[in-house]
Amino acid sequence: MTMTQGIAHRQVGEQFEGFLLIKSVDKGVTSSGKPFLTIIFRDRTGEIEAKLWDSTKEDEETFMPEAIVQVHGEIRQFRGKNQLNIRQIRLSNEMDGVRVEDFIEKAPVELEEMQDYLTQMIFALENPNIQRIVRAILKKYNDDLLTYPAATKNHHEYASGLIHHIVSMLKIARQMKDLYSEINTDLLYAGIILHDIGKVKELSSPASPTYTLEGKMLGHISMMVDEIKVTAEELGIEGEEVMLLQHLVLSHHGKGEWGSPKAPIVREAELLHLIDMMDAKMNMMNRALESVEPGEFTDRIFPLENRQFYKPTI
Amino acid sequence: MTMTQGIAHRQVGEQFEGFLLIKSVDKGVTSSGKPFLTIIFRDRTGEIEAKLWDSTKEDEETFMPEAIVQVHGEIRQFRGKNQLNIRQIRLSNEMDGVRVEDFIEKAPVELEEMQDYLTQMIFALENPNIQRIVRAILKKYNDDLLTYPAATKNHHEYASGLIHHIVSMLKIARQMKDLYSEINTDLLYAGIILHDIGKVKELSSPASPTYTLEGKMLGHISMMVDEIKVTAEELGIEGEEVMLLQHLVLSHHGKGEWGSPKAPIVREAELLHLIDMMDAKMNMMNRALESVEPGEFTDRIFPLENRQFYKPTI
Amino acid sequence: MTMTQGIAHRQVGEQFEGFLLIKSVDKGVTSSGKPFLTIIFRDRTGEIEAKLWDSTKEDEETFMPEAIVQVHGEIRQFRGKNQLNIRQIRLSNEMDGVRVEDFIEKAPVELEEMQDYLTQMIFALENPNIQRIVRAILKKYNDDLLTYPAATKNHHEYASGLIHHIVSMLKIARQMKDLYSEINTDLLYAGIILHDIGKVKELSSPASPTYTLEGKMLGHISMMVDEIKVTAEELGIEGEEVMLLQHLVLSHHGKGEWGSPKAPIVREAELLHLIDMMDAKMNMMNRALESVEPGEFTDRIFPLENRQFYKPTI
Amino acid sequence: MTMTQGIAHRQVGEQFEGFLLIKSVDKGVTSSGKPFLTIIFRDRTGEIEAKLWDSTKEDEETFMPEAIVQVHGEIRQFRGKNQLNIRQIRLSNEMDGVRVEDFIEKAPVELEEMQDYLTQMIFALENPNIQRIVRAILKKYNDDLLTYPAATKNHHEYASGLIHHIVSMLKIARQMKDLYSEINTDLLYAGIILHDIGKVKELSSPASPTYTLEGKMLGHISMMVDEIKVTAEELGIEGEEVMLLQHLVLSHHGKGEWGSPKAPIVREAELLHLIDMMDAKMNMMNRALESVEPGEFTDRIFPLENRQFYKPTI
Amino acid sequence: MTMTQGIAHRQVGEQFEGFLLIKSVDKGVTSSGKPFLTIIFRDRTGEIEAKLWDSTKEDEETFMPEAIVQVHGEIRQFRGKNQLNIRQIRLSNEMDGVRVEDFIEKAPVELEEMQDYLTQMIFALENPNIQRIVRAILKKYNDDLLTYPAATKNHHEYASGLIHHIVSMLKIARQMKDLYSEINTDLLYAGIILHDIGKVKELSSPASPTYTLEGKMLGHISMMVDEIKVTAEELGIEGEEVMLLQHLVLSHHGKGEWGSPKAPIVREAELLHLIDMMDAKMNMMNRALESVEPGEFTDRIFPLENRQFYKPTI
Amino acid sequence: MTMTQGIAHRQVGEQFEGFLLIKSVDKGVTSSGKPFLTIIFRDRTGEIEAKLWDSTKEDEETFMPEAIVQVHGEIRQFRGKNQLNIRQIRLSNEMDGVRVEDFIEKAPVELEEMQDYLTQMIFALENPNIQRIVRAILKKYNDDLLTYPAATKNHHEYASGLIHHIVSMLKIARQMKDLYSEINTDLLYAGIILHDIGKVKELSSPASPTYTLEGKMLGHISMMVDEIKVTAEELGIEGEEVMLLQHLVLSHHGKGEWGSPKAPIVREAELLHLIDMMDAKMNMMNRALESVEPGEFTDRIFPLENRQFYKPTI
Repeated sequence: MTMTQGIAHRQVGEQFEGFLLIKSVDKGVTSSGKPFLTIIFRDRTGEIEAKLWDSTKEDEETFMPEAIVQVHGEIRQFRGKNQLNIRQIRLSNEMDGVRVEDFIEKAPVELEEMQDYLTQMIFALENPNIQRIVRAILKKYNDDLLTYPAATKNHHEYASGLIHHIVSMLKIARQMKDLYSEINTDLLYAGIILHDIGKVKELSSPASPTYTLEGKMLGHISMMVDEIKVTAEELGIEGEEVMLLQHLVLSHHGKGEWGSPKAPIVREAELLHLIDMMDAKMNMMNRALESVEPGEFTDRIFPLENRQFYKPTI
Repeated sequence: MTMTQGIAHRQVGEQFEGFLLIKSVDKGVTSSGKPFLTIIFRDRTGEIEAKLWDSTKEDEETFMPEAIVQVHGEIRQFRGKNQLNIRQIRLSNEMDGVRVEDFIEKAPVELEEMQDYLTQMIFALENPNIQRIVRAILKKYNDDLLTYPAATKNHHEYASGLIHHIVSMLKIARQMKDLYSEINTDLLYAGIILHDIGKVKELSSPASPTYTLEGKMLGHISMMVDEIKVTAEELGIEGEEVMLLQHLVLSHHGKGEWGSPKAPIVREAELLHLIDMMDAKMNMMNRALESVEPGEFTDRIFPLENRQFYKPTI
Repeated sequence: MTMTQGIAHRQVGEQFEGFLLIKSVDKGVTSSGKPFLTIIFRDRTGEIEAKLWDSTKEDEETFMPEAIVQVHGEIRQFRGKNQLNIRQIRLSNEMDGVRVEDFIEKAPVELEEMQDYLTQMIFALENPNIQRIVRAILKKYNDDLLTYPAATKNHHEYASGLIHHIVSMLKIARQMKDLYSEINTDLLYAGIILHDIGKVKELSSPASPTYTLEGKMLGHISMMVDEIKVTAEELGIEGEEVMLLQHLVLSHHGKGEWGSPKAPIVREAELLHLIDMMDAKMNMMNRALESVEPGEFTDRIFPLENRQFYKPTI
Repeated sequence: MTMTQGIAHRQVGEQFEGFLLIKSVDKGVTSSGKPFLTIIFRDRTGEIEAKLWDSTKEDEETFMPEAIVQVHGEIRQFRGKNQLNIRQIRLSNEMDGVRVEDFIEKAPVELEEMQDYLTQMIFALENPNIQRIVRAILKKYNDDLLTYPAATKNHHEYASGLIHHIVSMLKIARQMKDLYSEINTDLLYAGIILHDIGKVKELSSPASPTYTLEGKMLGHISMMVDEIKVTAEELGIEGEEVMLLQHLVLSHHGKGEWGSPKAPIVREAELLHLIDMMDAKMNMMNRALESVEPGEFTDRIFPLENRQFYKPTI
Repeated sequence: MTMTQGIAHRQVGEQFEGFLLIKSVDKGVTSSGKPFLTIIFRDRTGEIEAKLWDSTKEDEETFMPEAIVQVHGEIRQFRGKNQLNIRQIRLSNEMDGVRVEDFIEKAPVELEEMQDYLTQMIFALENPNIQRIVRAILKKYNDDLLTYPAATKNHHEYASGLIHHIVSMLKIARQMKDLYSEINTDLLYAGIILHDIGKVKELSSPASPTYTLEGKMLGHISMMVDEIKVTAEELGIEGEEVMLLQHLVLSHHGKGEWGSPKAPIVREAELLHLIDMMDAKMNMMNRALESVEPGEFTDRIFPLENRQFYKPTI
Repeated sequence: MTMTQGIAHRQVGEQFEGFLLIKSVDKGVTSSGKPFLTIIFRDRTGEIEAKLWDSTKEDEETFMPEAIVQVHGEIRQFRGKNQLNIRQIRLSNEMDGVRVEDFIEKAPVELEEMQDYLTQMIFALENPNIQRIVRAILKKYNDDLLTYPAATKNHHEYASGLIHHIVSMLKIARQMKDLYSEINTDLLYAGIILHDIGKVKELSSPASPTYTLEGKMLGHISMMVDEIKVTAEELGIEGEEVMLLQHLVLSHHGKGEWGSPKAPIVREAELLHLIDMMDAKMNMMNRALESVEPGEFTDRIFPLENRQFYKPTI
């Protein structure tokens, strides 16, 4: 299969022919009473809304979310946003050789490389209690850790985004150790590795994640704080390490309004919070600036106080 | 022993003779270089600061916190507050027949009566999973539950204040059921019983409680959320009940700024939060108004937005 | 007349035939220049938008707000919301035996029962000044009190919602008295009865209330504070009771940001505020949860911080 | 009587001899058990704390608040503030020819002049309903209006401060009319005249005002809103004027957090709020800058966000 | 050319024939695939959206922003707002005698009159350093000062709005001097003249202003603070005047959240801020009330906390 | 001279004999009328209050701020804080060989090492305009840059604290470049070097800095934004670099409430803000934790939301 140019980069008036993944489908009726489908397509570069006019019952049953289709059509504009006007559409088949993964954005670093780095950092943990707890928890969640995004939107919201976020934070942390030698790296590294793993239970799936019931009721922070307690009991580990790891996870959002019932009161907990914020913000800015030219502004970035960022020409 | 009139009700100029509990002692030196002790005494009605001038080394070793002493002195005023000027002081002995409990404020309801009511409400729990979890947790903390205050200050901050708060809330809850028949009483009652039991680990002791290290790091809410999880696992209980009980405890402060990382999203959780607030506020107002006359204002009550309350004359 | 199944419970694709009340009508023109009417219909279960295509001058004059009509049509979907496509529509006549009241939601308790309870509570007022002021004000507003909602939206926003809210609050108050015996019930009951009666002047009508000019300028709180003063003067009553009743009404929103220029500084005023909040919140939650199945979430409830509530399966 | 140099301008080390007004007296006991009095003296320039050591029972009965005394002593410093060390003190008598008014700060404009201006502005009111209401209310409060301060602290907190504030605002308002000809001066002038008259009931007395019980419960805004209603009824006046005047008074603090349950929604109400703020702020700044030299900063001014203002050298 | 009745005052159903300025044009495609243009027209009274159905390539090239056209059509309603349905449209030509200025709102005072007043106030500056700096800066920006608006929206957002705002503020300032004689008019007048001149660099053009890159990066306040420094250096002026003028400009938004990194700490700076706010708010209210009848409410005014203002009937 | 053990580490009851720097002196009078001096002494470890009883006129003239004295005395406690009771005190002389620098805390890194690193980073700047501006500004402020603290309190508030802060931030920035390769290091490094140099004009002196008049009026941010503009003009440099450097300095406090009139809208500006915050917070935490033992809490740290930090025992 030849990947066509990304759907997000097409211009109004262009013809489109290629494969797309269906993200969602809604049924509608025109003012003259005729049925149509509003389909959101996606590929790695983004999404586009499309209209399939005069849709049949069969269309409705064929073109379902998660299906890959081949589409011919034209890019038009509607209320200031691009829209794909479908002329032809058919379901893809095995012969097309297309896979769901081809249409989903993923981390910009190779998975294997990230896994290696993570393993290496776990070996660097010197406190045996901390190392055992980290290993035991990673073992439980290993598969999901490799595929989950770090969030449903805003930052690292792509396949393997979670491990990408963890690894980037570990790299910052390792540098901080050189500058501020007082840091307890066992605490800081372990905190970074564990802090967001609760997302694996908070979110429903790596591909198109939504919040689980438990996620809404308890949240990834409380779930991971529980997990550390339960794991420590299973391993028969007692001592300040357990409470400290719980505190690092519990406080990593920084304050109550942001979801942490306790603010950090251990240096490494505060630093974990700062590194988390820094990596998340850099990820957002870098990805937004990637798709604009020098001299231009990005779209508004909501979690960065809705600012638009400028790309210098120098 | 005859209990003297409470220390909080004495007037400036009065002579005092009676037994008092030492709450704290600080050593000082006058401008002319002479040592003295600043002692905070307490009895059930409140506290008073006192000065023991020209104190000796022996005095320092004798008059320690938690000791009961017999004091003669006079009530004076210093910077607008009453102060006890000590003329004579001696340590109490067995013959005096005084006990620490006699000097500490306690709940205005008999402990046995509260225990009975609590037991009765546990019997009223119909869902077996909920009942078993509640029983198991109460069993672990039973002794402390009977003696601990509900807080270090502000409301129910006296011996057995915790169970007093729980029982008052249960009584309100039972009435609410009559008015709003849709309420799931199993959830509501169990949530009320468990919501503050984490205080037993958050606070150091029933008599003069301070925050424990774990209390500062994790807080009573997170500790009890953990406890429910661990207890359910020990009992082999699974199902929505566990998550719901965790949610009720987690969300009972209402929102992030107030210490709950998740706001209530179950009706009974919201109601638990409202009843908690109502009972705490009534307790504060009732105790403050108790000691003023009709037509007067109370002192400022900090957790009630620093308001002074007026006692009507009608 | 046989009441058809409520408009809010119809599914897309269903045929509809039955009586509906017209809430509002807007005239529009299609892109091809043809006139049509957009009508909002309501019955007790809710509202639905409808389109009357190719409408005539006569249609415009016939189908006016507050009219009851018989409609044949089909439920369709437009922008994610149900819409009724009208095929036939005619004005109802006397023979149809339908009345406006049949299409407006009303309190779930019988009016007579609520009136009896209110009367009984007024008898329970022991302070003669308070009783006389309450009676005099109720006499002025009695008719409206029986029909008005307590608000235009959010809580108790149905026919007789105002008296329903008052009666529910009185029931809570009566229980509180058992738990906190210090409460002055004369103040509390009278405060509850009077606190929201100003709504009768703040809102334009019981059926489809909007804010009156005076309501926008002064608000129901200030208007009732005035009313108490004026009534007391008319009755020749002086004394602390007048000021206390004014304070209870004035402060019942709790603080400045919420519309009370003075925060409560009398115990019964604070309690009135808490009971008001509790009953309003329970009313919102109960009504939202009524229409969802166990395991589901309600829609977002704006005045409850936009939360969605979960209905447990246990 | 020769007025001595103001107490606020004395330097540490100076001898003082002159008449002072006693503002408050507190009884204390030294560490060696000897009684003394802490007296706050005041004159027009400010206040000073003083100690009368070894005070007798007779002293306590003689030197009471509101008494004028002749004092000899020395200015010392205690904890960074000036203190008057009393060597001699005696009660003033008729022969001394001193009056309380001589020791209280008053408005910098002659009372008669302000009265004239106010009268002239009332004549300028063209709408007969507005004029009659204003006249009737002024008549009720006329005496107090001439003596009361506009506040207990912060701005215009001196004798006749209330009328001074009203007159200054009227002058600004008259100028505004020239610039913005659309203004309804009847509304604006009447609103300015009435807006703060409720202070006369909110504060206890012109000399050393504290908040009255009614002031704490209802506040000057609600009391004046009531007054307008009652006065209009007494005069048999109906119509939009009554509601508009009530709205102007009700909204003049600008928003809920600042004590106005309704924000201004009439142009003249918004303008009244702005003029009130401007005159209050100018009064605070002018008085603070009066007592510093060019190149210096004032003390912090709390209601101006605790800023210190700089007096330029140009 | 005869100016037709303003576009903002037309009623639904009316025929329109006259000249209009094109503000913006967007191309669209109907559900049946036919191209059309959405044009926003404006004249001095406001804006209206229009549809040009079945538009041709030539239409797109002819009807561009800033063009003046003659239009025949009908006023219709779409989603609650007026819309102009175009029947005929042609580009204007020289013979029509219409100019862009005829379609843009401008200040309600003659430009020459405003210039004279400004010149007169500059003569009134007595401090030579201040006068020289003000003159030098005005000289640099003189042309733009005469044409620019004071903002892109909200207040004084019309041609010559900037000088209109400055002149109105100067008039208020001159009156304030009479009331508060302590004011340093040199500082106040100079501050008023300079405070918003940075807008000339912050905004792109007088006609349809947008924010410049420098405007977004630095803002008009910082740019003018720089300008004063640079100008003073060019003129060889040193001394407190430079710093004071910089402070007046820097602080005129009042506080950090509103764009001033330093709050005013000079009396004239605080007063400048208050006068700026007063003139801006009066301008907004006056213009909104101009177009409603007595007894009606204006639209919501966003920068006035989204309030709707009422126009009294008296 | 042998440096005695630091004043901050002395215990109550210990004898003290050694040299100290006088920070401030206040004159007082005892209740019995005797003069005394309250002196604040400092050395590198901290400060202590002392009382010199029965002080003479000569003492007042001898023991002035900035003087070094030799003191004999005893450590006592007053209101919970250590106090030095002076028995003997004399001014130091040349023979004592003590210098002011010996009593002032300084950066923990050698000045030469920091200078070298800074020089090296300036060489790393590739954009010639940026390099020239940075060099020119550093040249103007070089001497002060080597001695000034970065703040009067909170973080890097010691001799050479400014350059220490800059160098630490540059080190973090260099590491960030490895992780986020998109960063424009010219902008980031130059922004870091310049961002706080305005402190040199905002603060009065390196030893006991207070805010200058210009610092209070304009602040270090505005002064440096001006400086960049002026320097660029002097060097004849135009182009985006100037505006970008101004933006980096202007926005480095992150938002309006924190003193930046524009929030960062360039990636490197946001990153500069984050690195600034991280280095400042690490500096505060490290220094507070330095002086406590494992298992203990630090004092409250005000700019870290008044938190107390715990030093783990692992």
